[in-house]
Amino acid sequence: MTGFNLRHFAQHGKKVVAVGRNYRDHCAELNNAVPTTPMLFMKPSSAYLTESSGPILIPRGCTDLHHEVELGVVIASECRDVSVDTAMSHVGGYALALDMTARDFQEKCKSKGQPWEIAKGFDTSLPVSRFITKEELPEPHNVVLWCKVNGEDRQRGNTREMVFNIPTLLSYISGIFTLQPGDLVLTGTPAGVGPVKAGDLISCGIADLLQCQFAVAQR
Amino acid sequence: MTGFNLRHFAQHGKKVVAVGRNYRDHCAELNNAVPTTPMLFMKPSSAYLTESSGPILIPRGCTDLHHEVELGVVIASECRDVSVDTAMSHVGGYALALDMTARDFQEKCKSKGQPWEIAKGFDTSLPVSRFITKEELPEPHNVVLWCKVNGEDRQRGNTREMVFNIPTLLSYISGIFTLQPGDLVLTGTPAGVGPVKAGDLISCGIADLLQCQFAVAQR
Ligand SMILES: [Mg+2]
Ligand SMILES: [Mg+2]
Ligand SMILES: [Mg+2]
Repeated sequence: MTGFNLRHFAQHGKKVVAVGRNYRDHCAELNNAVPTTPMLFMKPSSAYLTESSGPILIPRGCTDLHHEVELGVVIASECRDVSVDTAMSHVGGYALALDMTARDFQEKCKSKGQPWEIAKGFDTSLPVSRFITKEELPEPHNVVLWCKVNGEDRQRGNTREMVFNIPTLLSYISGIFTLQPGDLVLTGTPAGVGPVKAGDLISCGIADLLQCQFAVAQR
Repeated sequence: MTGFNLRHFAQHGKKVVAVGRNYRDHCAELNNAVPTTPMLFMKPSSAYLTESSGPILIPRGCTDLHHEVELGVVIASECRDVSVDTAMSHVGGYALALDMTARDFQEKCKSKGQPWEIAKGFDTSLPVSRFITKEELPEPHNVVLWCKVNGEDRQRGNTREMVFNIPTLLSYISGIFTLQPGDLVLTGTPAGVGPVKAGDLISCGIADLLQCQFAVAQR
């Protein structure tokens, strides 16, 4: 049905829908209110960076590039106006992801009321792990995500702390944007986001299931 | 190289990069300053609506859906950091497009400093014409775009009035987001944007070269 193996979601998937402010402690650290409906934005598929395919590149002009470790949900089958009850049947698997964010660009966009794409969607702004099967992650709402920079702890949060859980997100999103096989939904980041600079090494993982590493360089 | 015929850009293309405020008269009508660098946002490929594939659907909760007629540029070959001088060699052709915009949602996003995707990227927010070859449109910077609603003139502007021309846009965009075969770049809308409601019929065209029609219905 998809025409490709979901393991290759980063190569073939078209759309990445991201959810902002989906962990209370992260809302607090950036002085944002906890949302009453999911706040959505997108990254283009050209932003994907898979392991061993080069460093995360700091966009020209950016002086405050932040890591945001997130659980990504890979869509297996088309969903439009899907119900909360049936949403999980459209999940094909998962990936760990970094929602790399040019925080300085984002602050400027926010203050001017301008779109966020240049802050969120630049090339290499979406490092991802390998595909994770549903069998490998039977409890997606009870797993620890972590992120370290140069070996130092930065983020550690449990997915049970999401404001909107995965089926709620998929139902809401699919009422606006049809989700298609290979699309990725980024489910938000726990507290601890912070800057990286050229030469840094980011490592991130899901509990003991998986970890991956990405170097940082200047574009 | 692309693995598909560019005529099928709407089916296979992954990314749509749109430029806001690229005609002075449109900046003025929405009380926006003329930008000094292109203002970029994106639509997902799930937003495409081709002719004869159903109506434009007004998103639930939207009470001010606007038409914005635009020239779309279809990318033929990958470009990253392309120069202004060589940018046009990456153009495979064109399409006429409507950048349908939930203006009420957009105003809310702007006032809250939130991302624009729900205002710009909902399903059916990107009606497009058939593919137009470069031979059919030898002077993309000197052609009239027009849009009517129920037969009444709404928009009429010449592409020579763009603030940033096509090579300038492609050079700027490709310095941030790698453009890939089948990607579409929307080059902004001239003045005259305005609301449509369920039951309306939008017709739009490029001079006498091409015209297309889209009905409007409630989702
Ligand atoms: Mg995030
Ligand atoms: Mg004009
Ligand atoms: Mg527009």
